[in-house]
Amino acid sequence: MIVIMKHGATKEQVEKVIDRVKKEGMDVHLSEGKEQTIIGLVGDTKKMLDVPFKSYDGVENTVRITSTYKLSSREFHPSDTVVDVDGVKIGGNEEFVTMAGPCSIEGREQIMECARIAKEGGAKILRGGAFKPRTSPYAFQGLGEEGLIYIREAADAYGLKVITEVMDEANLPLVAKYTDILQIGARNMQNFKLLQAVGKTNVPVALKRGISGTIDEWLNAAEYVVSEGNQRVIFVERGIRTYETATRNTFDLSAVPLIQKLSHFPIIVDPSHGVGIWDLVSPMALAGVAAGASGMIVEIHPEPSKAWSDGQQSLNEKRYKNMMAQIDVLTKAMKDVKKIQAEI
Amino acid sequence: MIVIMKHGATKEQVEKVIDRVKKEGMDVHLSEGKEQTIIGLVGDTKKMLDVPFKSYDGVENTVRITSTYKLSSREFHPSDTVVDVDGVKIGGNEEFVTMAGPCSIEGREQIMECARIAKEGGAKILRGGAFKPRTSPYAFQGLGEEGLIYIREAADAYGLKVITEVMDEANLPLVAKYTDILQIGARNMQNFKLLQAVGKTNVPVALKRGISGTIDEWLNAAEYVVSEGNQRVIFVERGIRTYETATRNTFDLSAVPLIQKLSHFPIIVDPSHGVGIWDLVSPMALAGVAAGASGMIVEIHPEPSKAWSDGQQSLNEKRYKNMMAQIDVLTKAMKDVKKIQAEI
Amino acid sequence: MIVIMKHGATKEQVEKVIDRVKKEGMDVHLSEGKEQTIIGLVGDTKKMLDVPFKSYDGVENTVRITSTYKLSSREFHPSDTVVDVDGVKIGGNEEFVTMAGPCSIEGREQIMECARIAKEGGAKILRGGAFKPRTSPYAFQGLGEEGLIYIREAADAYGLKVITEVMDEANLPLVAKYTDILQIGARNMQNFKLLQAVGKTNVPVALKRGISGTIDEWLNAAEYVVSEGNQRVIFVERGIRTYETATRNTFDLSAVPLIQKLSHFPIIVDPSHGVGIWDLVSPMALAGVAAGASGMIVEIHPEPSKAWSDGQQSLNEKRYKNMMAQIDVLTKAMKDVKKIQAEI
Amino acid sequence: MIVIMKHGATKEQVEKVIDRVKKEGMDVHLSEGKEQTIIGLVGDTKKMLDVPFKSYDGVENTVRITSTYKLSSREFHPSDTVVDVDGVKIGGNEEFVTMAGPCSIEGREQIMECARIAKEGGAKILRGGAFKPRTSPYAFQGLGEEGLIYIREAADAYGLKVITEVMDEANLPLVAKYTDILQIGARNMQNFKLLQAVGKTNVPVALKRGISGTIDEWLNAAEYVVSEGNQRVIFVERGIRTYETATRNTFDLSAVPLIQKLSHFPIIVDPSHGVGIWDLVSPMALAGVAAGASGMIVEIHPEPSKAWSDGQQSLNEKRYKNMMAQIDVLTKAMKDVKKIQAEI
Repeated sequence: MIVIMKHGATKEQVEKVIDRVKKEGMDVHLSEGKEQTIIGLVGDTKKMLDVPFKSYDGVENTVRITSTYKLSSREFHPSDTVVDVDGVKIGGNEEFVTMAGPCSIEGREQIMECARIAKEGGAKILRGGAFKPRTSPYAFQGLGEEGLIYIREAADAYGLKVITEVMDEANLPLVAKYTDILQIGARNMQNFKLLQAVGKTNVPVALKRGISGTIDEWLNAAEYVVSEGNQRVIFVERGIRTYETATRNTFDLSAVPLIQKLSHFPIIVDPSHGVGIWDLVSPMALAGVAAGASGMIVEIHPEPSKAWSDGQQSLNEKRYKNMMAQIDVLTKAMKDVKKIQAEI
Repeated sequence: MIVIMKHGATKEQVEKVIDRVKKEGMDVHLSEGKEQTIIGLVGDTKKMLDVPFKSYDGVENTVRITSTYKLSSREFHPSDTVVDVDGVKIGGNEEFVTMAGPCSIEGREQIMECARIAKEGGAKILRGGAFKPRTSPYAFQGLGEEGLIYIREAADAYGLKVITEVMDEANLPLVAKYTDILQIGARNMQNFKLLQAVGKTNVPVALKRGISGTIDEWLNAAEYVVSEGNQRVIFVERGIRTYETATRNTFDLSAVPLIQKLSHFPIIVDPSHGVGIWDLVSPMALAGVAAGASGMIVEIHPEPSKAWSDGQQSLNEKRYKNMMAQIDVLTKAMKDVKKIQAEI
Repeated sequence: MIVIMKHGATKEQVEKVIDRVKKEGMDVHLSEGKEQTIIGLVGDTKKMLDVPFKSYDGVENTVRITSTYKLSSREFHPSDTVVDVDGVKIGGNEEFVTMAGPCSIEGREQIMECARIAKEGGAKILRGGAFKPRTSPYAFQGLGEEGLIYIREAADAYGLKVITEVMDEANLPLVAKYTDILQIGARNMQNFKLLQAVGKTNVPVALKRGISGTIDEWLNAAEYVVSEGNQRVIFVERGIRTYETATRNTFDLSAVPLIQKLSHFPIIVDPSHGVGIWDLVSPMALAGVAAGASGMIVEIHPEPSKAWSDGQQSLNEKRYKNMMAQIDVLTKAMKDVKKIQAEI
Repeated sequence: MIVIMKHGATKEQVEKVIDRVKKEGMDVHLSEGKEQTIIGLVGDTKKMLDVPFKSYDGVENTVRITSTYKLSSREFHPSDTVVDVDGVKIGGNEEFVTMAGPCSIEGREQIMECARIAKEGGAKILRGGAFKPRTSPYAFQGLGEEGLIYIREAADAYGLKVITEVMDEANLPLVAKYTDILQIGARNMQNFKLLQAVGKTNVPVALKRGISGTIDEWLNAAEYVVSEGNQRVIFVERGIRTYETATRNTFDLSAVPLIQKLSHFPIIVDPSHGVGIWDLVSPMALAGVAAGASGMIVEIHPEPSKAWSDGQQSLNEKRYKNMMAQIDVLTKAMKDVKKIQAEI
């Protein structure tokens, strides 16, 4: 951490800052420029995080130069972590993994049909919500446990794994009983109590980026999970909130190489929420593959116009299978691309 | 709700949409323009919210024209709701209410000193966090119940009420035991399970706007509380996340008259988080008064440079009291201003 | 400027950075921490602005610690600059100045009527656009010189000054002939050629904040004007683009005290564009007064529903005069408020 | 266009709106729901764009349902426009075209070396700025005509075309003399006078998306060019401004399929500005290919650490050539992908 003094800060003011730093058991490196004095903190600056240096007289600004997350960082764990979901491997140089299914589980028949389509298209994991976070209290909130029973049954029938959202600590044991991956939704990225709770399970956690989550906050959210002992985190880029309203969100694909640079955990993409318009989903899924994602999660529905939620961003059977055929071509090409990348 | 068909949509496509609408027991008003056909839905369109019309062939767009919140709306309850916090009245034509205190409760002595300052400056309610939502799991997370005991004691000693944050359903009974107002933090504005839980209590709820919460989402979040039976909601504008980094958040004061137009519940402002820099807090507090807010919540600390969190946006005793003297002048002037407003 | 080396950067990498700094005639202060080495640059770091230190191996980040604007900075010119517009003084402890008028000049009669209303309400300056920047090429683009003639005539008839927008260098001499203040619109905040051109005139410049302009960019935009010799800049906060669509823009009132802290030039507010909805204009104008602005610019129209542009955010005569009466009360109170502020 | 009346609007209020519509020579379709009355406008609603219906009593909202751009729309011109830059074809099913070069032209030798690298890597067009829009007036502003002479010479020496930025109308004839494509920078996307000026030339125009430009504004900006007669527009996605600071901008790749859906003009991507960090450029360029872009513009430099601007996002020779080899693999695969896309 660096403390930047104001132009014209007095010696006394500089001393007060230094005193505080030393009181915390750290050393300083003083850099007295013509324009400004800069105080560099030497030692484990994590304990200085909460010191409000900006409230000291004469202080202009502070700059944090080390990250606050550690266990999630690439520095801490240089090689890629591969998250093994009961045999389906996500991350590293493993295959591109597709998770497909409806937004909401609407009934036994619907999820069974989704499982068939997902499987035939090449997905390994079945998605579907039983507990749905909805903006309005009057919108459909999900089938609850009934939905969990159906999705488990459907996944098992077609040899798929299950991913579904857990919204609160109270329902965690219930959801964990039926699912292979616990999804933390965008609205809960900084629901720290929930993060700690899933961190205490041994179920893989798919951590969606918050609606306006920064890369730094997202990595720190993962740290909440990992610091409780759960070493199986999967980042999910699902678009962020910006001024642009032509798409549901702004799909930030640069998060893929950036997270890979900063963390050892895998990252997958969610083009359905990323754009929110079904005919943009397929090109964005392809872009996700090319950006280097380890997989994707995509919304499909036997009949999107009858979906109870997110119908406008869901692919029907024909479109989904066509997209998967495209992705197949691209993932093969990416193997050659990665060889070239490795040459540098 | 309105469904807008694409230029060149076929009769058949129009019919399919109409069929769906009628199947849900509603009527349509058809408007066939030269350029586009528009289908207006007539009846209680709330049940149409989840119908994915955009996934129908030939549909260009849909427009929601009624709000999804009802109990929180001004239309439902035309007169101002005054939230009575054990005698301290917030909203309507009542006095401008100040809630002051530290970001975190750091100990018995600190919160007692804060209570003294708050009271002397004219605040009616003491704020202070015992459970702190922190970006990093390694940052100070609050004193927990110990903190709750201290703040209750301090408030009682100085004849103040207490506002403190509840972060999860599990700790709700504990927090509710000590506080007069339950604060829902910005990160939890769409923690729907928590909203429902506080909605089942009879404790007033201060609902902070989400970090990137829209006005519409915020009103719907209130609806989650109110629809469970709790009729005492206070909106808190605390700044939103934008591209601007010169301030901690962008303090959206237009939310004050806008919420007052759309809802009957009171709205107060949080200039400390709104700007995040102590020397901008005072002018923004004044601006909040002038915008018509029913009160404010502000961070103070006996010695900001020693605060465990948010020190850079906290006011010391002298600055706080000076600000309160300014606010006193302004709130008096606002009485005359409101008389002029009423003339129109 | 500070260059922060990566954890584990080699001595050689550090040397390369230092060499470059020294080659530019500057000195360094080296701070070798356990975790990271930090290189502080000593001297006039302005020339280092374009050095891409981040492209050097081993460099993690760079931090700019001095502003790039100088002549516009409060540091350079500690006392308030009062911009004198032919006798109407804006800034410092002068009166709160109102500029009122229509979005577009629509004809001789309309602007004459606006001038009457503006004057009677207490405005000192008449606004009105003759050249209009419009999103669509098919929208009304303004009356051009005809409009300039009308607004000048109307202002003179009522003893008002004129403010109007200049959109390009080619029309600058024409616009300058008729106006007392040159307005640079939000879309042109970084039209550097235009900024330089108005900087060469001796006409006061009202510089609107860009649609997504940062405080830093805005101050640098002013520097473009001032560095050409024109010392009369007025900042205009008019709202910024955010994710929120309930208002036209997000009105960032914190810009008022922030600009006052960083620059000596006055800042006024534009509540009409800030919110874009007429019934929010009045409370936001009051908030602007309380935040400490030196004035405001507001859209009025004899009959808003017949306005050719911006009708939905324009005030009619009755509402405008009512607002001005409110503002009158508040500006008086602010004199007392400022006395209290001065006590600290 | 649709006008939505408030719940409880009177018959008289509805009549006033209808009168206005009819006065403009249009018809209405009235839809009287239980909750709200909706007035659909029938005819060429473009003339209604400026009518401030929201300022009419009883009006809740208006919804625009037709776009304001026409000549740029896919509806107007269903097939892809291929922009032919003196033999280099951009758009439709043509090859993926790369434009490479330095941010700034720094001298004859530097741009000559860049041209060699660009050509060897497979680029067809040489980029380089002679007039640079810089945030600070004290930063390097470009070599001006000297730079234009050098880039033309370098491009000709290696059989490349030239793209360079034009910042103002005054320099347009000069820039047009040397370049094959006129670049409109992000800050000038809504410099309408400049758009009209380049629209009067017959030189292809590369129109960068504004720093916070919406898709709709961007298409309207193109309309400014096209409506003046210039039918050769190339959209350039270069990232937008959001709250995220981990990257220079947020690279919005969904703009690629979205613009292709709404317009017939080609769109290319600028991964260098999109992310601003050199090691993310290559994966984002690949993602651009997969998203279906017609080409890209990328910053290269013989020695990025010595670049006068944008060094941190420039690729050196080795990295650029490695990226181009990857892109080569991907563009080949995309031919097969497009065949599969065409099957649906």
